[in-house]
Amino acid sequence: MSRKLALIGFGNVGRALARLLAAPNSSFGFQIAGIHTARHGTAIFRETDKVPFDQWAANWPGEMPLLGPPAPSVAAFLECARADIAVELTPLEPSTGEPAIGHIRAAFARGMHAVTANKGPIAHAYAALRDEARLAGVRFRFESTVMDGAPVFNMVRRNLPGVRILGFTGVLNSTAKIVVETMRDGGSMEEGIRKARRLGVAEADASFDIDGWDSAAKAAALANVLMDAGVTPLSVNTRGIGRLTPERVQDLAARGKTVCLVSRGRHTREGIHLRVRPEVVEISDILACVHGTSNLLLLHTDLMGTVGTVSISPTVDQTAYGVLSDLADLAI
Amino acid sequence: MSRKLALIGFGNVGRALARLLAAPNSSFGFQIAGIHTARHGTAIFRETDKVPFDQWAANWPGEMPLLGPPAPSVAAFLECARADIAVELTPLEPSTGEPAIGHIRAAFARGMHAVTANKGPIAHAYAALRDEARLAGVRFRFESTVMDGAPVFNMVRRNLPGVRILGFTGVLNSTAKIVVETMRDGGSMEEGIRKARRLGVAEADASFDIDGWDSAAKAAALANVLMDAGVTPLSVNTRGIGRLTPERVQDLAARGKTVCLVSRGRHTREGIHLRVRPEVVEISDILACVHGTSNLLLLHTDLMGTVGTVSISPTVDQTAYGVLSDLADLAI
Repeated sequence: MSRKLALIGFGNVGRALARLLAAPNSSFGFQIAGIHTARHGTAIFRETDKVPFDQWAANWPGEMPLLGPPAPSVAAFLECARADIAVELTPLEPSTGEPAIGHIRAAFARGMHAVTANKGPIAHAYAALRDEARLAGVRFRFESTVMDGAPVFNMVRRNLPGVRILGFTGVLNSTAKIVVETMRDGGSMEEGIRKARRLGVAEADASFDIDGWDSAAKAAALANVLMDAGVTPLSVNTRGIGRLTPERVQDLAARGKTVCLVSRGRHTREGIHLRVRPEVVEISDILACVHGTSNLLLLHTDLMGTVGTVSISPTVDQTAYGVLSDLADLAI
Repeated sequence: MSRKLALIGFGNVGRALARLLAAPNSSFGFQIAGIHTARHGTAIFRETDKVPFDQWAANWPGEMPLLGPPAPSVAAFLECARADIAVELTPLEPSTGEPAIGHIRAAFARGMHAVTANKGPIAHAYAALRDEARLAGVRFRFESTVMDGAPVFNMVRRNLPGVRILGFTGVLNSTAKIVVETMRDGGSMEEGIRKARRLGVAEADASFDIDGWDSAAKAAALANVLMDAGVTPLSVNTRGIGRLTPERVQDLAARGKTVCLVSRGRHTREGIHLRVRPEVVEISDILACVHGTSNLLLLHTDLMGTVGTVSISPTVDQTAYGVLSDLADLAI
């Protein structure tokens, strides 16, 4: 059984995962063998440690007293951690997907399975990583990269045998929803972004949400995994909500309509067409009825028609659970 | 591998399943070894048949020329079919779940796995059938009994490891939705029921939909499988939409609201509470935004928050696919 984990990155998701694994009722039996962060340093845990990991993790949220000086490299950390599974949880670098892609390759090169919650590698290099994992005889999971841990990729793989994904329609960016709702209630773009920041859903650079690049990265990730598109976010025809005004949103609301930032993908004769657009829809439209931080993904299929997943007000705990569901999948 | 199927019942779902299995691009490799219907008779197919099954099935929709006189009993049919999996597709008998429960037991008694699209057995006798399957060393699947084949039961079992289902909220009855939509547009209850009949979603006795018993049976099925409730539909506190009027629906619509027939289940100190009610909600509420024959199920969980499945305008082909996904699950 593959049970020893090496965590690369230890931000909110990593800490939530540590809490899940350390919970008294946790029946998963995974052990964190090491934690590596560029900023806070590196820790390696051994069965012989005086302070076992779960006692330590049980104190979260808190400081990281046990982290020592950082390992010289992620590769050196993985060598030292002697884990079965690398868990890549570093922050997204939207334009390249690095350094996360390199971290995952470092794991594969050492015969370790990899799980990531970082959509960069899936949006930029999925096909290559999938094939490299096969060659290395290891597995690669990434459920939390879209929809915050709700079953999407594992659901299609395990529950829709023989189904061809013809396309998808997703309302996947929380910041855009919160901005539109704020404008509808008379607030400004900036107030909406501040509210999204308070809720912890805005990217460090909110323009990444507002200009549609987060939605484009998710569209590329979905297309790469579900439709074998072999694209990057740059291939997605993307327009954000940057020019949206409170007046426009309120005018639409008066007519029973609203704006959703929608990620769409579909097979066409010319290949796979991907686009992100602010779309005007009725407030009773299913695309409009996921509010705040909730999100919705509809999959258009050949045999199963249109079937979707909705996640209501997910938090970092659900993202961490998605990682845990990937770990459980690898441990089967 | 378990690949030979004995179909008990051959109505719309059975015929759609036969079409799926006979499709030229079908990669599943299941064979229909026999078909038994009370009304049309029984057919047993052998590899040596001059007219192989899939040529025959490819002619659907059509008559059933190859069906001979009915076997004296389902048990006799199963003996004769020499199949690996019994596929129970007889019509729902809401008040008892029979004779489907007996058909499934007859399969277990012969060491056959069973798949059903009939919610009766799950709503009335799930725990007993689950335990009897274990004792017999066979498996029992029923994905299509709720949500027309969209991943629900298999999704929870395979994609939500370690998650406890605390409750659910479902808008699961299409006839009720169509009746409310018809009333909103000025039509009567009867017109709504006729429209649901034309769409093929109303039960033979539409009062089963209108009075909430279909929603109660689905609530009982969900609670039995996902919450180990051990209940029957009679345990569900049920009120239907029989007293709803077009005036009431239009008055609500004028105020941006509508009525949904909602199935709810939750753990309480006193045990599992199940109820079906017409609920007044905003038209922008997620419960209100599945229209026509679409349906929605939200699962309230401990680790994954509230996560849901939506199925947009499913047809009998999706119900048949749900059966196929169960078969693929058994064949793994």
